[in-house]
Amino acid sequence: MPKQPLITLTTDFGPSSPYVAALKGVVLSINPEVRLVDLSHSVAPQKILQGAQVLAEITPLFPPDAIHLAVVDPGVGTSRPIVYVEFSTGRFVCPDNGLLSRLVQREIPSKIIRVEATRFFRPQVAPTFHGRDIMAPVAAHLSHGLDPAKLGPQHESLRQLDWPGAVKVANRIEGEVVDVDPFGNLITNITREMLSGVPTDERVSIRCQDHQTHSIFTTYADQPSMTLVALVGSNEQLELAIVDESATIMLGVGVGAQMEVCW
Amino acid sequence: MPKQPLITLTTDFGPSSPYVAALKGVVLSINPEVRLVDLSHSVAPQKILQGAQVLAEITPLFPPDAIHLAVVDPGVGTSRPIVYVEFSTGRFVCPDNGLLSRLVQREIPSKIIRVEATRFFRPQVAPTFHGRDIMAPVAAHLSHGLDPAKLGPQHESLRQLDWPGAVKVANRIEGEVVDVDPFGNLITNITREMLSGVPTDERVSIRCQDHQTHSIFTTYADQPSMTLVALVGSNEQLELAIVDESATIMLGVGVGAQMEVCW
Amino acid sequence: MPKQPLITLTTDFGPSSPYVAALKGVVLSINPEVRLVDLSHSVAPQKILQGAQVLAEITPLFPPDAIHLAVVDPGVGTSRPIVYVEFSTGRFVCPDNGLLSRLVQREIPSKIIRVEATRFFRPQVAPTFHGRDIMAPVAAHLSHGLDPAKLGPQHESLRQLDWPGAVKVANRIEGEVVDVDPFGNLITNITREMLSGVPTDERVSIRCQDHQTHSIFTTYADQPSMTLVALVGSNEQLELAIVDESATIMLGVGVGAQMEVCW
Repeated sequence: MPKQPLITLTTDFGPSSPYVAALKGVVLSINPEVRLVDLSHSVAPQKILQGAQVLAEITPLFPPDAIHLAVVDPGVGTSRPIVYVEFSTGRFVCPDNGLLSRLVQREIPSKIIRVEATRFFRPQVAPTFHGRDIMAPVAAHLSHGLDPAKLGPQHESLRQLDWPGAVKVANRIEGEVVDVDPFGNLITNITREMLSGVPTDERVSIRCQDHQTHSIFTTYADQPSMTLVALVGSNEQLELAIVDESATIMLGVGVGAQMEVCW
Repeated sequence: MPKQPLITLTTDFGPSSPYVAALKGVVLSINPEVRLVDLSHSVAPQKILQGAQVLAEITPLFPPDAIHLAVVDPGVGTSRPIVYVEFSTGRFVCPDNGLLSRLVQREIPSKIIRVEATRFFRPQVAPTFHGRDIMAPVAAHLSHGLDPAKLGPQHESLRQLDWPGAVKVANRIEGEVVDVDPFGNLITNITREMLSGVPTDERVSIRCQDHQTHSIFTTYADQPSMTLVALVGSNEQLELAIVDESATIMLGVGVGAQMEVCW
Repeated sequence: MPKQPLITLTTDFGPSSPYVAALKGVVLSINPEVRLVDLSHSVAPQKILQGAQVLAEITPLFPPDAIHLAVVDPGVGTSRPIVYVEFSTGRFVCPDNGLLSRLVQREIPSKIIRVEATRFFRPQVAPTFHGRDIMAPVAAHLSHGLDPAKLGPQHESLRQLDWPGAVKVANRIEGEVVDVDPFGNLITNITREMLSGVPTDERVSIRCQDHQTHSIFTTYADQPSMTLVALVGSNEQLELAIVDESATIMLGVGVGAQMEVCW
C-alpha cells in the first residue's frame, strides 16, 4: 500500500475552531488521501514567537517528509510573502514572518521558495484568510507530489525574530520564562547545554522573583508534594515546577519573568 | 487504492470531550476505514443556530461525498425526527431541529429521509445519547455504501429556524452581530451582496452601539494597530475588527449587538 | 486493503496541547500507517480516577484490537512500572498507577506485561516525558504487530485505586457526584443496576445538598425548561440535570457532592 502523505496543522485559531476544519476541508478536497494531524491550535493569537517555539520543538518528532502547514499570520493580506521551506527534519508552508526563527537557528534550510503561482490557490482568495485560500491548497498540491519549484522563485532568506536569549557570566546564568506548559510548569530559555559544568546539587540556587530553590533534579517526583523544584525538562530547557501543583498559579509567575541560576 | 470514506463531526460537546470519542469509536467499530475529521465541537451547548452557521460555512469546503454528522440535539429522546439529507455540497445525518436552516436557505436538498430503521442503530439506544446510538452508526453504515432509502421513508420538509436578517432601506443597512471569531472580530449578518452599490470609502459609516468607523477595508493590516476597521471577511459577511486586538473585548460588544451601515 | 491499525490517546495535557502532537509524531515516525484518534485530553491534570472513568466508559466502544495509549502519569520518572494490558474490549499501554482501575472492576485482564525492553523506547528517554519516549514508541511497535511478550516479563497485578462507591440500605441509596458532563449535568456513582426495584414515579425523591426532585425520567426533554430532573444517563449512571441549563452552575454543585435517593 502506498504511504499516505502527512500534513500537520499549527494555527492560532484556538482549539476546535471551525476555521481549522476549513483548512482540512480544502486540503481533502484537493487530496482526499492526506492524513491530517493537529500540531497545535493554542498558539496565542498572533504570537509568532510562541508558534516558532512549538514548531521547533514538535515538528522534528514527525517523519521528515511530513508537510507542516503553519498559519499564525497577523500580516495576512499585506505583502509579506508566503514561503515553502525545506529542512532535513520537515517541510513547511507558512508566512515569512519569523515563524521558522527557532528552526533556522539550528539548521540552514536547504530550500526556500516564495509561493506565487496562483494556479495552486483557491479560485477566490479572501484577503483575510490566506491559510484557507493559499496555504492549505498549496500544501495539498505538494502532498500530491507537486515540484516545489513550480510554486515560485527562490526566496533569499527568511525573516528572523529576536529570541530572548539567556546569558552565562562567570558563576551565573540569567534567563527568563518563555513558556508555561499545561501543568503550570515554568519553562525557561536556559538550556541543558548552558548548564554544562554547573553543579546540580545543593551548591546551585535557582531564583525567580521572590522564590528560590536549590539543586537541579531529574524528575518531578523526586521531592514531596508542594515542593518547588528545578529540573531540565523533556525539551532540554530548565524549568521550575511545584510537585503535584501548578507553579504558574501558586507563584503568580508567567512568561517574561526573570530567572537566575547561581553557583 | 480505493478512496477512504470521510465523516466529519460537529457537536456542542466542547473541545476534546470524551463524548466525541464515543461517536468515533462507534463509527470505527462499524467501518474501520472511515477517515474522521472534527468540524467543530465548540458550538455553544444547544445553540442550534450557531451550529447551522458553522455547517453552512465550513461543509461546502469538503468533498461533496463527505458525510457530515451533526449532533446539536437539545430535543434528544423526544419525537423530533432524525434525518438523512443530501445537498450538492455534502450529505448530512442530524436531528431535524433547524440545524440545516442556513444550508437550506441556499439550496433545496435533493433528498430527505427520516431515519427509522432500527437495524442500523446500536442494539441499545439510550434516550439521552442518540448521537452515539443512532446517528453515529447510521453515518458509519452510509459510509459503507448503504442505500439511504433503506433508512426510512421520505421526509416532507426540514424544520427551519428564523434567521436574524439584515434590512436594507434607502441609504442604510441595519443588521446585527451574529458571531465572534477566535480573534475577537465581530461577524455581522450583513453580506457582501447587500453591500453592492454601497461606497467603500470615507462616505460610508459603520456604527455599532457607541462605536463608529468609516470606510470598508479589504484586510486587517491596512490600518495601524489598535484601529477600529470594518471589512468583508472570508465568509463574505461584514465584520468589525480592531487591528492586532480583540474587538469583542475592547468594545465590550458580542453576539446580538445592533450594527448600522449608512452612506 | 489491509486494515490500518488504530491507536487512541488519552492524556491530561489539555485540549490541543502540542505535547499531544509530540506523541503522534513519535507514533507516525515508527508506523506511518497508524490511524490516531483522540479519546480525551481533558482529564484534569494528574487525576488518575477521572482518567480511569473515561477509559472505562469510552474504550469499549472502539474495535477490540485498538491500542489505547493513556498518559496520566504524575509519577513519571519514578519506579512505577509501565504496562501493556489486554482486555476483551481493548489493549492498553499506560503507567501502572490505577488508570485501569475501573476496567479491572469489570473484567480480569487476559495479559499484563511490564514494559522494560529499552530497544523499543526512543534512544534518549527524558525522565519527565515517558509518554513521548517510552509509551508512544511502544504503542507504535505494537501496532506493527510486535509480540507483547517481547516487551518484558509478566506483571503480577495492576495497582487498584479506591473507587467512591454508592451504598444501598433499605429504602435509601447514598452516593456522590463523580463527574460533570459538558452540559453541566451531574453524573453520580449510582448505577442503573442499584436502582433496580426502586420506583421511578413520584414516590422516589432525589436529593443533592438543598436541592430535591421527584421521579426518575428517561430523557432531558420530558419536562419544561429550567426544571430539575433526575434520569439514568447514557453511561448507565443516575444524573441530575436542569432542562436547557447547566446544573453544575445553577445549583453550585460539583464533583464530590453527596446524593441521596429515597423511596
